[in-house]
Amino acid sequence: MERTLVSELSGMVGKTVTLQGWLHWKRDLGGIQFALLRDRSGIVQLVVEKDVDLPIAESAMEVRGQVVQNAKAPGGLEVLAQELQFLARALEPSPIEIPKEEWRANPETLLEYRYVSLRGEKARATLKVQAALVRGFRQYLDAQGFTEIFTPKIVSAGAEGGSNLFPIDYFEQRAYLAQSPQLYKQIMVGVYERVYEVAPVFRAEQHATSRHLNEYLSLDVEMGFIRDENEVMDLEENLLRAMLEEARRSVSSELELLGAEWPNLTEMPRLEHAEARRILREELSMPVGQDFNEEAERALGAWAKERWGVDFLFVSKYPEVARPFYAYPEGDGRTRGFDLLFRGLEITSGGQRVHEHRMLVEQLEKKGNDPANFAGYLEVFKFGMPPHGGFAIGAERLTQKLLGLPNVRYARAFPRDRHRLTP
Amino acid sequence: MERTLVSELSGMVGKTVTLQGWLHWKRDLGGIQFALLRDRSGIVQLVVEKDVDLPIAESAMEVRGQVVQNAKAPGGLEVLAQELQFLARALEPSPIEIPKEEWRANPETLLEYRYVSLRGEKARATLKVQAALVRGFRQYLDAQGFTEIFTPKIVSAGAEGGSNLFPIDYFEQRAYLAQSPQLYKQIMVGVYERVYEVAPVFRAEQHATSRHLNEYLSLDVEMGFIRDENEVMDLEENLLRAMLEEARRSVSSELELLGAEWPNLTEMPRLEHAEARRILREELSMPVGQDFNEEAERALGAWAKERWGVDFLFVSKYPEVARPFYAYPEGDGRTRGFDLLFRGLEITSGGQRVHEHRMLVEQLEKKGNDPANFAGYLEVFKFGMPPHGGFAIGAERLTQKLLGLPNVRYARAFPRDRHRLTP
Repeated sequence: MERTLVSELSGMVGKTVTLQGWLHWKRDLGGIQFALLRDRSGIVQLVVEKDVDLPIAESAMEVRGQVVQNAKAPGGLEVLAQELQFLARALEPSPIEIPKEEWRANPETLLEYRYVSLRGEKARATLKVQAALVRGFRQYLDAQGFTEIFTPKIVSAGAEGGSNLFPIDYFEQRAYLAQSPQLYKQIMVGVYERVYEVAPVFRAEQHATSRHLNEYLSLDVEMGFIRDENEVMDLEENLLRAMLEEARRSVSSELELLGAEWPNLTEMPRLEHAEARRILREELSMPVGQDFNEEAERALGAWAKERWGVDFLFVSKYPEVARPFYAYPEGDGRTRGFDLLFRGLEITSGGQRVHEHRMLVEQLEKKGNDPANFAGYLEVFKFGMPPHGGFAIGAERLTQKLLGLPNVRYARAFPRDRHRLTP
Repeated sequence: MERTLVSELSGMVGKTVTLQGWLHWKRDLGGIQFALLRDRSGIVQLVVEKDVDLPIAESAMEVRGQVVQNAKAPGGLEVLAQELQFLARALEPSPIEIPKEEWRANPETLLEYRYVSLRGEKARATLKVQAALVRGFRQYLDAQGFTEIFTPKIVSAGAEGGSNLFPIDYFEQRAYLAQSPQLYKQIMVGVYERVYEVAPVFRAEQHATSRHLNEYLSLDVEMGFIRDENEVMDLEENLLRAMLEEARRSVSSELELLGAEWPNLTEMPRLEHAEARRILREELSMPVGQDFNEEAERALGAWAKERWGVDFLFVSKYPEVARPFYAYPEGDGRTRGFDLLFRGLEITSGGQRVHEHRMLVEQLEKKGNDPANFAGYLEVFKFGMPPHGGFAIGAERLTQKLLGLPNVRYARAFPRDRHRLTP
């Protein structure tokens, strides 16, 4: 008999159906038993005769039964179980009680048992929202003439020099995990003009904070033939709108379950870095350097929310001292580099890049680098690289701030951090 | 003035347009110059006055000019250049002549200069076809209720034991690059029932052949609540049809340019491994072991093409000795594991997996493994894993065989092999 999904039951009242899923919860009332069956589409109440020996929760099962209306049951429906078959019995109770999933529980415990805690409704909803955002990312860019690329994660050198790299033993050679597809997406601008990549990046940062991951999903974009970085920010604005609309279209019940607060997508102002710095110092009395730390970004986000009612804030014209050598210099100490803050958290770094060989050599030297060490990078710029720019969105941070998650780790299925390599 | 793409010119005859792209080729006829401009959408002929000093090919440029018909020009159109602006001049001639791209050239040279050789029409078309196949993969699975997942590439142990792993220095710990998302996609079946992932995998194999890559794009699928592996093969058949249809829909001119031979998508027969072995030995007089080598696969592919007119051939019921411990055993030395050959090249391994804890322990022991070394893996199976199975498609091999490429490296933007770490 054909399987029915829980989400399809509302049209099946009176009929006999076959369900498959997990024993989410059970309760023995003496004369009768109630249980909840969970499948990928939802949860439904089962009424089970008293002599049936229900196994431990999380057992996988198949149920044949009649769909009936019951105003008191969750969703107004229940299934009178006639036949139960246990496809795989749980051997012991789950270390995390799935129906009692509590986000304020010790995060280390949730992460330790991630292979079952992911079955919780909120954990499932979170990663489902992320998948929808990523789908929206690709759909929008495909429609704008972008080509998806797949660049190497095993590289011979870092995009920004030698720091924060994980070393790999590559046969007889030393190699590294790519901390960004930066050079490769620039090369691909010379090939397809407009490219994107959805792939993991790796940062050997020592931080152990609620906003850092050592492996995360980077949504990378790069486009050629731009006038300046404003075109890149225009693209990112429209892209974010499309991504969030795709989430609203396809995972609205997940957004509701998680209590996601819908952001202001109409306005995403662009504040010059120098002006942002002035605001932090003069209006918010915060001591700030050339690069903003976590606290400064949070304060700036709160300021923009209060003053302008916005959730997304571009900080533009970053100073050269706070940017890598490939940021396009304005010639006055500023660059065409920007960050995007979402609710006070940096989710993007981007900007126009240097596209001329001569200027790249100058910028490398200005930063105290020997151009000879960047020969492979420089070579590419001998062959007509048009003015170009791009950005990368951290998928987990975007998800975190959209859903109000206390820790970015919850936006990754199996997070890697300073100490965590398992599960 | 708004930019026009080359592909849009046919509707603009008589109008003045602005084009952007690269100087693909140039020729000075004394009284007049001809040039070709290449953008992401195509190539068009430019007529340029004799006194204009055209730079080296591959320079990035912007051209303003009138679109006129000329039956002798490629595509029947040309642009009379009125204003030319060079956005980035090439500093030296490209080491690979882009318009003369020749696939039979020394592959090492093409790969060495990949950052420019990728600009060739065929190289661009190849990776464009691959992107379309991947898009078709996601679209089909999304429509079938699958959820996209993103699993870690930094892992603490190999999915199949310790061989062919690249070691990473992960802070104070030893870690490895994931050779497959096997365990993680199985865990995610417990979460979403049906999952897929598009991500790089890493194999420290010593081979240096035309069909091996040390880093490649794996299109992974896993689904729960199956009856047996036939359901998994059914899914893969329909998925491949959808992927190829998406390519035909969206990149038909690239397929034509590359002379892709359309495969038989109607029939993808399933041949049991024992029978395949008999055919190899008796009908093709080849000595074969329990696992088939490259030569045997090629012979089998040719046999199936000649006998049945098919391009895709499943080899099912692989023997236990040739499969990892998690392959579901039939109890008679066979498993529910299969390979899929495409034109004689293995592009997929898949099958039903063991879902019961007890059986997994048995299978590990049978293979001489200490279950204690697989404690993390085993733990997952204590919590009701339904019957499930899946497969992985090697994106580059699929692309290679579809397009008839002589080497799988051409199906990867920046291949990594035994010796190659750059560009």
